[in-house]
Amino acid sequence: MRTSIATVSLSGPLTEKLTAAARAGFDGVEIFENDLIGSPLTPEEIRERTADLGLTIDLYQPMRDIEAVPDDVFARNLRRAEHKFRLMRRLGADTVLVCSSVSPQALDDDALATEQLRRLADLAQEYGIRIAYEALAWGRHVSTYDHAWRIVEAADHPALGVCLDSFHILARGSDPAGIADIPGDRIFFLQLADAPLMALDVLQWSRHYRCFPGQGDLDVAGLVRAAVRAGYDGPLSLEVFNDVFRQADAGRTAVDARRSLALLQESAGLTAPPAPVVPTGFAFVEIATADTARITPLLTALGFSRTARHSGKPVDLWEQGEARILLNTDTDTGTGSHRPDPSLTAIGLENPDPAAASARAESLLAPVLPRRRAPRDAPLDAVAAPDGTEFFFCATGRTGHPNWTGDFAPAPHTPGGIGVTRIDHVALTQPWHQFDEAVLFHRSVLGLRPHASIDLVDPYGLLRSRAASNSEGTVRIALGVGASPTDDPARPQHVALATDDLVTAVRRARAAGARLLPVPANYYDDLAARHEFAPGELETYRELGILYDRDEKGEFRHCYTVTTGSLFFELVERTAGYDGYGAQNAPVRLAAQRT
Amino acid sequence: MRTSIATVSLSGPLTEKLTAAARAGFDGVEIFENDLIGSPLTPEEIRERTADLGLTIDLYQPMRDIEAVPDDVFARNLRRAEHKFRLMRRLGADTVLVCSSVSPQALDDDALATEQLRRLADLAQEYGIRIAYEALAWGRHVSTYDHAWRIVEAADHPALGVCLDSFHILARGSDPAGIADIPGDRIFFLQLADAPLMALDVLQWSRHYRCFPGQGDLDVAGLVRAAVRAGYDGPLSLEVFNDVFRQADAGRTAVDARRSLALLQESAGLTAPPAPVVPTGFAFVEIATADTARITPLLTALGFSRTARHSGKPVDLWEQGEARILLNTDTDTGTGSHRPDPSLTAIGLENPDPAAASARAESLLAPVLPRRRAPRDAPLDAVAAPDGTEFFFCATGRTGHPNWTGDFAPAPHTPGGIGVTRIDHVALTQPWHQFDEAVLFHRSVLGLRPHASIDLVDPYGLLRSRAASNSEGTVRIALGVGASPTDDPARPQHVALATDDLVTAVRRARAAGARLLPVPANYYDDLAARHEFAPGELETYRELGILYDRDEKGEFRHCYTVTTGSLFFELVERTAGYDGYGAQNAPVRLAAQRT
Repeated sequence: MRTSIATVSLSGPLTEKLTAAARAGFDGVEIFENDLIGSPLTPEEIRERTADLGLTIDLYQPMRDIEAVPDDVFARNLRRAEHKFRLMRRLGADTVLVCSSVSPQALDDDALATEQLRRLADLAQEYGIRIAYEALAWGRHVSTYDHAWRIVEAADHPALGVCLDSFHILARGSDPAGIADIPGDRIFFLQLADAPLMALDVLQWSRHYRCFPGQGDLDVAGLVRAAVRAGYDGPLSLEVFNDVFRQADAGRTAVDARRSLALLQESAGLTAPPAPVVPTGFAFVEIATADTARITPLLTALGFSRTARHSGKPVDLWEQGEARILLNTDTDTGTGSHRPDPSLTAIGLENPDPAAASARAESLLAPVLPRRRAPRDAPLDAVAAPDGTEFFFCATGRTGHPNWTGDFAPAPHTPGGIGVTRIDHVALTQPWHQFDEAVLFHRSVLGLRPHASIDLVDPYGLLRSRAASNSEGTVRIALGVGASPTDDPARPQHVALATDDLVTAVRRARAAGARLLPVPANYYDDLAARHEFAPGELETYRELGILYDRDEKGEFRHCYTVTTGSLFFELVERTAGYDGYGAQNAPVRLAAQRT
Repeated sequence: MRTSIATVSLSGPLTEKLTAAARAGFDGVEIFENDLIGSPLTPEEIRERTADLGLTIDLYQPMRDIEAVPDDVFARNLRRAEHKFRLMRRLGADTVLVCSSVSPQALDDDALATEQLRRLADLAQEYGIRIAYEALAWGRHVSTYDHAWRIVEAADHPALGVCLDSFHILARGSDPAGIADIPGDRIFFLQLADAPLMALDVLQWSRHYRCFPGQGDLDVAGLVRAAVRAGYDGPLSLEVFNDVFRQADAGRTAVDARRSLALLQESAGLTAPPAPVVPTGFAFVEIATADTARITPLLTALGFSRTARHSGKPVDLWEQGEARILLNTDTDTGTGSHRPDPSLTAIGLENPDPAAASARAESLLAPVLPRRRAPRDAPLDAVAAPDGTEFFFCATGRTGHPNWTGDFAPAPHTPGGIGVTRIDHVALTQPWHQFDEAVLFHRSVLGLRPHASIDLVDPYGLLRSRAASNSEGTVRIALGVGASPTDDPARPQHVALATDDLVTAVRRARAAGARLLPVPANYYDDLAARHEFAPGELETYRELGILYDRDEKGEFRHCYTVTTGSLFFELVERTAGYDGYGAQNAPVRLAAQRT
């Protein structure tokens, strides 16, 4: 089906919105009236610009407070409408959105609404225009789609149909199954938006917190299926009012939007892009630094050994158990991030079928990176995430796949370690304007399952955190975002290393000179109040600076190194069943990092 | 009455919170448990630090999910409580907040709650501690203050009383009149917070959107009166969870908080600070620039003449009608703002009693500026607003008051002008973290009345705007704030000049070379659809770039100059009764300013 996006969903002047929509691959746009009014281009120029970009104008919107009003008011409304029909002819738009009235002048009189909408449709028809009548969730008398349809059905006019909006329908808890009762050719338009579930006045919810399908909690795919079953074959169009998207770069938002629609079409069974291939583990994390001396003492103290060196690039492989860290001093190849050095730049994910994973990523508009960075490198499929982190699809040591470790020549080293077995999780701070985009990216492109969003208390604001993992918990990525856009540069990333015996690992790391984050004594007094421990257990945690959490299923012990550049490490021991990240302890960690 | 503030209301580590509270003049603090747990100081060190700062610890908070639970759970809860009582003894705190349980384990059994709270109070008494039991608005079984009081009354224990929280009481719509039924000595604590009215889940509302009394819509003063009438004589304590305050400078927030309490005490009839003296008009606006040539061509084109020069400083007075503009090239005396040059730095307000206005400002913790800048200057009372703008209290040309115009020597000039009569309003962009503070400042310190907050659509986000005016509308200040903290430096201020004949004024200004903001042709097509005009009227607006608005009472015509530095001018004509600022046209203006 054709895809479309409302200009109100994107930031900037109208011309930038149109360009962003076209570049992201949309077929058409809905033009929001205020965007046209604020534009220095004439309607004819907008028509031409849109056509040059390969876009159609699928909807002009919105016309408000038209129907079910006293005669004199309706006469003025018809006059106003005719002005807009003339404008639409200049613009080359043939469908206009009419929202159900919110005016205090509107009467609770379906017959009057029917008659006036029929007269409006008569006028529209003279201009070759169709009216798509939509029930606003907060409409004064008409607030449900079936009510809007009853009025349209009664008016029985070829230039009058309904516009269905997933937000207005699902936010009110209406059952979209009833859409099947509407003949497909009377559904003139389908507007799509998702939203997180919130107990908020529906108008405020709609105006500020809509998001793209797949980023919220509404079953938008189910609604699309119902409309398609009814015979709707117009565009799938996104109309999203969102305070953050309004500020974000229009080009990025448009790509995010297009990815959301691609995923929605897949969920609704309308398309079958390459299937997701869920990663099974971490192959490596890559750290960029201009000077390895900034990080190697810490890696050594954490039990890592330099086991190999890349044959063509200044990249070292450090290993311990199945945890692998690449140290890259070729800072020219960085991601352009302005984070302090050292910083985390790339993550390798073990993938059952790297080529298929890459094909899916490409179908979902992920920026696919060159497969081969240097002539002799093993070709590796990789994509860039919204925060610039590069994700490589790896098949470490598996025959029949390019083997990235083959690019490395073994270096002499003494086996050792503190008991780190693998990478438990990676925590990535996202750009403030791209948090929803990042969650959708990790879900759709990387095949991870997002968990609930939680707030973490930092001394200088609330941070938001949302983990995404595979179902076995062998790939876990915690996405975080600061309290405000000004926070971005300050937030470090971190790599959590798993061990089966944290106490021993910490003792060894400390003995080897690792600088761990100090934990206040008050924390342990509180732990003693909250839980009972085996004799000596709490004292050991207190001595070593270990944090502790427990849920119904298991236990979590963890501690942190101090931050180097924009990076720190965590050591974690999770017993079977514990599926969290110690969020209970985050305020203590964040306070300690601010001290 | 003593004043107190909860540490959770302020940003930063505990020690910074304590310092900020003490510097702002609070008598005591509530210590929020997480602030203590995250602090590297021991309880004894916190006790000492607090005492050194002259603060008492009025409350330790909160203890949660204690009461009305099965026996085994209660045994664990008592154990946990005893840990906290020991901690409080070390801390020197004698009152603890116990919130009504939200635990799914809690039973709907008042007798059980009563018995367990009595046992908790027995234990507390051994440690010399008092329990203040508070009904959370979202408590599982106990969610209203009268219910909490019934349980406390039944328990009948000297170490058990209630804590009243204005948010929990007023947000649920409970009538605070019932507080009179509680003996004053059984009200152990009074927590105060305001909030804007929102149709939002009460827990989310409470956790993110509380504000200081006077900044929201709740009648906190009425509640305080009820508690005082009941005999409460403990501290008035602010407990405010606010996403913005969490990020803001603790020192500023503490002063804002203390000002809010001073105003609350006045509203509740507990104190009688110097009465507000409402300003009657604008005396002048002052513009700082390193080079007058950047602004004088525009002032000249707008009909201003240089009428006088300060006898001791490089400051020129430009006049037209009753509109006065000071041009100050002594940039050393600037406000330290980093706005582009030229910028608006000060505003003179005509005041019936400048000395009294200044006394009120000082009593409300406004930073009072030196009265005399240079030895021979007329002494002028002035304060700095939260955004750094200096407000002078003036009595221009009135005998018996220092006359600031006496510092100026007349300069030869030819009378002229385009018909500007006076300053209509000034629009000041506020620092993102200080918007609520700014509104309260303009209300309490300057004696203006704040109007409703509205959202304005800018191409790159929603701006918030809130006007404050005197009742005659002769002083109007529009406070604005950008979509995010990163927006601050980009937003200009502006000065709106009143005329009785905008069309003539614009023709003259254009003829004199004023560069006015271009208005898109589409705007006039939309105006034609919305309103009917006299023949030729709309064409004149279109020709001259005049914007138009109408409400039930009157009409508003206005246009803007282009921006110079961080400043632009507006020319406005308002007919009697129109009380707005053309918000309807703001998106067009904002879009044009972004083009």
